[in-house]
Amino acid sequence: VSDGFGPANLPFGVVRPRDGGAPRGAVRLGDRALDLAAAQGDGLLAVDGLPDGAFAAPDLNAFLACPRPVWEAVRARVRELLEAGDGTLLELAACEALLPMRVGDYVDFYSSIEHATNLGRLFRPGAEPLLPNWRHLPVGYHGRSSTVVVSGTPIARPHGQRPPAEDGGPPTFGPSERLDIELELGFVTGGPPNPLGTPIGIGDVRDHVFGIVLVNDWSARDLQRWEYQPLGPFLGKSFATSVSPWIVPLAALEPHRVAGPAQDPEPLPYLRRTEDWNLDIALEVELAGTVVSRTNARGLYWDLAQQLAHATVNGTSIRPGDLYASGTISGAEPGTEGSLIELTRAGRQPVELRDGETRTFLRDGDEAVLRGIAGSGEDAVSLGEVRGTVVAQPPA
Amino acid sequence: VSDGFGPANLPFGVVRPRDGGAPRGAVRLGDRALDLAAAQGDGLLAVDGLPDGAFAAPDLNAFLACPRPVWEAVRARVRELLEAGDGTLLELAACEALLPMRVGDYVDFYSSIEHATNLGRLFRPGAEPLLPNWRHLPVGYHGRSSTVVVSGTPIARPHGQRPPAEDGGPPTFGPSERLDIELELGFVTGGPPNPLGTPIGIGDVRDHVFGIVLVNDWSARDLQRWEYQPLGPFLGKSFATSVSPWIVPLAALEPHRVAGPAQDPEPLPYLRRTEDWNLDIALEVELAGTVVSRTNARGLYWDLAQQLAHATVNGTSIRPGDLYASGTISGAEPGTEGSLIELTRAGRQPVELRDGETRTFLRDGDEAVLRGIAGSGEDAVSLGEVRGTVVAQPPA
Repeated sequence: VSDGFGPANLPFGVVRPRDGGAPRGAVRLGDRALDLAAAQGDGLLAVDGLPDGAFAAPDLNAFLACPRPVWEAVRARVRELLEAGDGTLLELAACEALLPMRVGDYVDFYSSIEHATNLGRLFRPGAEPLLPNWRHLPVGYHGRSSTVVVSGTPIARPHGQRPPAEDGGPPTFGPSERLDIELELGFVTGGPPNPLGTPIGIGDVRDHVFGIVLVNDWSARDLQRWEYQPLGPFLGKSFATSVSPWIVPLAALEPHRVAGPAQDPEPLPYLRRTEDWNLDIALEVELAGTVVSRTNARGLYWDLAQQLAHATVNGTSIRPGDLYASGTISGAEPGTEGSLIELTRAGRQPVELRDGETRTFLRDGDEAVLRGIAGSGEDAVSLGEVRGTVVAQPPA
Repeated sequence: VSDGFGPANLPFGVVRPRDGGAPRGAVRLGDRALDLAAAQGDGLLAVDGLPDGAFAAPDLNAFLACPRPVWEAVRARVRELLEAGDGTLLELAACEALLPMRVGDYVDFYSSIEHATNLGRLFRPGAEPLLPNWRHLPVGYHGRSSTVVVSGTPIARPHGQRPPAEDGGPPTFGPSERLDIELELGFVTGGPPNPLGTPIGIGDVRDHVFGIVLVNDWSARDLQRWEYQPLGPFLGKSFATSVSPWIVPLAALEPHRVAGPAQDPEPLPYLRRTEDWNLDIALEVELAGTVVSRTNARGLYWDLAQQLAHATVNGTSIRPGDLYASGTISGAEPGTEGSLIELTRAGRQPVELRDGETRTFLRDGDEAVLRGIAGSGEDAVSLGEVRGTVVAQPPA
């Protein structure tokens, strides 16, 4: 069994056999995955409330739309099948892992105080790095759902407007020269949508969050810097967001919940923690073969329950398959930053790779790999990895 | 024939008969609509490339996904059927008009120089109202697609964090006290999606834009003001966006294309106009029974072809059914502003309604109606209207 994909984990995904056959839902165990479409078709997955053919689909949305007791019953039944050796196991080496959900809305938060402080210093030098709202609410914005892609999808370097060389001058146009990664976790929503106008309370997170993925929120810093005032990031982010293919159920991460950092000032009542929802997940960033950052998600200032409560406090409805990313996860120490702009101090201090190479921002051909794992040994729960290689935009 | 819904228009929508029956695609003529699902089922709509059952669906996405020649052939055939009196006409009074498309991504631009200048003065008093990027690119951001709703949907007043009474103080929490409308046009995309990494050229707009709707981008100014730095609007906008139910094909608006305003500085090559894509559409805002603003879309600084070219220059893929709104459309004269924050000078000068009432921002029970029409007389092309009534958020 691969590290972190034992019976404690059992993440859900969608795979397509490379030798043909339709995409189908699957649960990973080690280097193999239980074919859920076959199991349901063969009558091995009779769970009240699970729609017929829920897993004979190119995404998990029909399953994600079920209420939580259905998720729990399916997970329990899958464990029974695996223990009994029933059902069809697919070799992952013979399958392509697809994007596991059809994303309705993609929201990106900004929940690491270390990252927000680092970025504030770089984007607004000389000013207070944290804006007045930051400690009162989990700042977030909507990203683009059409360009959420699965691990392994090549990332075309975006072209666009880059900042003027001097204040008041014209922008230049061309490929981004400051292409970056962002190390994030994201939660995938499920359950029946909340009615429009009805917020989700902070205590109801388990009914609305199915699980967690790794997210690489690729960022073109030059495009972003020029465009982002006053309405926020747009083309600097919208060209691609990569996610890991296996959604780790929140249920599998229960043993890895930890208390978050103290919050001062105390948040408003709708944001007050009722349980610990920080996750003790070790994370790393590998760039062109060298691990350049190691950090942990446990220190995030705003946790996922706070993010969900905030996103819906205005009555917004969430749908199954939505993606809510944490924002870049950075620690306080050098070497724990989750983006190159932080690791290199905006390009002034290159990071060293093996073989004596250095990088400030990404070059064409560079592969970035993000990994995450909770715990260790037999009970470890891995998020797997999210990979992407930068390629030049195809000629017009 | 109702004004503006004659044979020159023929907009597409989705209706559901109130006495039962499934939602189906339809083309409006006056106060009736041709049942496209029935027409296709009866063999009256045999068009190469149109998928079977394209209109027997709760949205037009399967039709929107067809290439432009299919749109044109269906439009031509519908005109023939209506002229010949063939096919089933539904009485609109006996139908509910549904949201016509399943929105993948919703983008909102900021393309009126008058609106951007007005808002800049109100949100950043004392500073240059237009930021340095504004004349170089159509500023935009991603909005929320799950809360795009059809005309007539009640709008629950959002709750959330409102700005501190004094700098450095804590925010307050409660229902928005500055709920506003925004008068906008939006284009709905269609055609096969562009591959990830491949921009859409400014000359290819007809292959990717199916048609136009009216948009009311409801805005909670207090929530927006507190949250929007540095990542842009989020909860101040995400609670609801209303659209008109009939998508007016771009083809119907060809006679109403006009030259846009001169642009200085000249835009970068990918944004240079190759054709006139400003639209001469008269617009009005009615609030609680009184028309409070009259304006026209023809003066927008950035046109829809520029918006589409910009949104995809980084290689973003668009999907059929995406919605791209113009941003608030305001003119230069008093009484031509497209939002209450502008009409009332941020609440300092109430607008007068009939019966001696006044308004600064929206009260519970207020209905807002936006209307749009191009041309006049028999050849007029109406966008119809988008209505919404404000209600209190249901108790928790």
